[in-house]
Amino acid sequence: MKIIVDAMGGDNAPLEIVKGSAEAASEYDVDIILVGDENQINKVSEDNDIDISKMEIVHASDVIANDEDADAVLKKKPDSSLAVALKLLAEGKGEAIVSAGNSGAICVGGTLIVKRIKGIKRPAFAPVLPHTNGGFFMLIDAGANLECRPEMLYQYAVMASAYMEKVMKVDKPRVGLANVGTEEHKGMELQHNTYELLKNSDLNFIGNVEARDLSDGVCDVCVCDGFTGNMILKTYEGVAKSLFGMIKQLFSKSFKNKIAAGLVIGDLKEMAKKFDYNEVGGAPIMGTAKPVFKAHGSSKAMTFKNAIRLTKDYVDGDVISEISNAIG
Amino acid sequence: MKIIVDAMGGDNAPLEIVKGSAEAASEYDVDIILVGDENQINKVSEDNDIDISKMEIVHASDVIANDEDADAVLKKKPDSSLAVALKLLAEGKGEAIVSAGNSGAICVGGTLIVKRIKGIKRPAFAPVLPHTNGGFFMLIDAGANLECRPEMLYQYAVMASAYMEKVMKVDKPRVGLANVGTEEHKGMELQHNTYELLKNSDLNFIGNVEARDLSDGVCDVCVCDGFTGNMILKTYEGVAKSLFGMIKQLFSKSFKNKIAAGLVIGDLKEMAKKFDYNEVGGAPIMGTAKPVFKAHGSSKAMTFKNAIRLTKDYVDGDVISEISNAIG
Repeated sequence: MKIIVDAMGGDNAPLEIVKGSAEAASEYDVDIILVGDENQINKVSEDNDIDISKMEIVHASDVIANDEDADAVLKKKPDSSLAVALKLLAEGKGEAIVSAGNSGAICVGGTLIVKRIKGIKRPAFAPVLPHTNGGFFMLIDAGANLECRPEMLYQYAVMASAYMEKVMKVDKPRVGLANVGTEEHKGMELQHNTYELLKNSDLNFIGNVEARDLSDGVCDVCVCDGFTGNMILKTYEGVAKSLFGMIKQLFSKSFKNKIAAGLVIGDLKEMAKKFDYNEVGGAPIMGTAKPVFKAHGSSKAMTFKNAIRLTKDYVDGDVISEISNAIG
Repeated sequence: MKIIVDAMGGDNAPLEIVKGSAEAASEYDVDIILVGDENQINKVSEDNDIDISKMEIVHASDVIANDEDADAVLKKKPDSSLAVALKLLAEGKGEAIVSAGNSGAICVGGTLIVKRIKGIKRPAFAPVLPHTNGGFFMLIDAGANLECRPEMLYQYAVMASAYMEKVMKVDKPRVGLANVGTEEHKGMELQHNTYELLKNSDLNFIGNVEARDLSDGVCDVCVCDGFTGNMILKTYEGVAKSLFGMIKQLFSKSFKNKIAAGLVIGDLKEMAKKFDYNEVGGAPIMGTAKPVFKAHGSSKAMTFKNAIRLTKDYVDGDVISEISNAIG
């Protein structure tokens, strides 16, 4: 399997991206195409003893920054690493793409260059988040489409169910609709109409779910419009980050606390890891005709390696055919 | 100052409500009117040695349950403790009301029985949440009005600024608009138009804020529609609760960890308290013509006492005149 990597996307590119790619290539059965500034890629590899001899490099002279408008991919920067990588995927030069770059640009570029699965109205940004029971849930859409219609939310549920089943190995994923209460009549027109669609579908729809129950694992798929999903995702990340920050401060506060830290540090790290969104590797874009995967912007080599593994599973699971069959 | 208390609202009513009211009456300079089932109120007071001799009791035969539809206040249960208490407030028998009962019913009842401040389109549910810097921010609206217009969000900002300044003693409260990114063009029509209104106002508007920065204290007032606010509030609560649950498990996992727990338990409790939404006491309903305060549903005596103190500050701060002047 050939996976195309945007070597220039993310806060730690190209070094950590190239490093993670090399690790993935040697651990998993994947070939990597690195897309980006050839000089820089070669230099960081040499400087850091990373063996990229088996990887193909496709040169791209430009880079899309994180704060640039998503449309930049196509219009202003056709020679950016992301745009070139997406074009390679569209042309069939690889089976999937992974980028730690600008999320908006990956969504827009994925939709316009790689195109959509036939019948899918809008691809969605769908991070997989940890909950405290040791499992995960997919939040879809987390920001690609701020305004949504009920049919879009129904399609999100279908796509996420396929992903959770095939990639995350969850049997009959429980689909919940994010709402202000669990009763059927809760919410606005979007929620009412989506509820009807989901209730009458073949999905394992469990009804409305409240945001407070997501971290306890109330569902395997949480469906919502992109504005709502962005709020949930970022509150989730923010509160977890703030609380772990407070814990860290607490344990370095006094000599006594430092001793306590020594006793529980292993378990604490394990707990933090369990709840660390970065550990999961990233978020697939669901609905593109070929797998497009967004690794975290702050990806280090290990996270990026994880992202490549998940992308491989995304291809292996044949998620896209599954979605095509369900929608078509 | 006379504060009307719905003695029957909340998970621990009437005992904890009566107890908290008695403590508030003796600690702060307030008179309390207890509204609810007279027999029950007298019985729990006698059984638990609570001195209610200085409090007036107004009998109400019915109770609104937490899962009842909000409209029940007026239509189905005019003799409920909440409805009777709200009517007493409307009639001027007290200066403010506190209830730990059904949030929806308190909002609807507050709006319809106590009425709105002249010029205010819709009262909002506005919890004050802790952030990790030791301060607080008001989230408005957190669920009273799922669909909002820009003028409503502007009014929320005005009301919350008055509250944060007068009650929480924050100088020139920083108002942020919840959005998917900080750039001015982010969001949908509601956010675009609200941005314009806030930018051209006298408020201390700091622009769009992302949900991930709320727990770090990026703003003192976070403005959004009720659906969005409910998602933020409940994710905030849920993640914090889940993480504290994980920490608790961690510290009881092994003998070694229990020793560590012994060393840091004081600091941990303090940290949990700092981040505990319950400690804050509750959420004012902003926009009613007289102060209506929602204490947490799970209020114990201490939380309810805090809620009464905040309600007293809400009256003392003359927040409602402040809002009237700003809107009128």
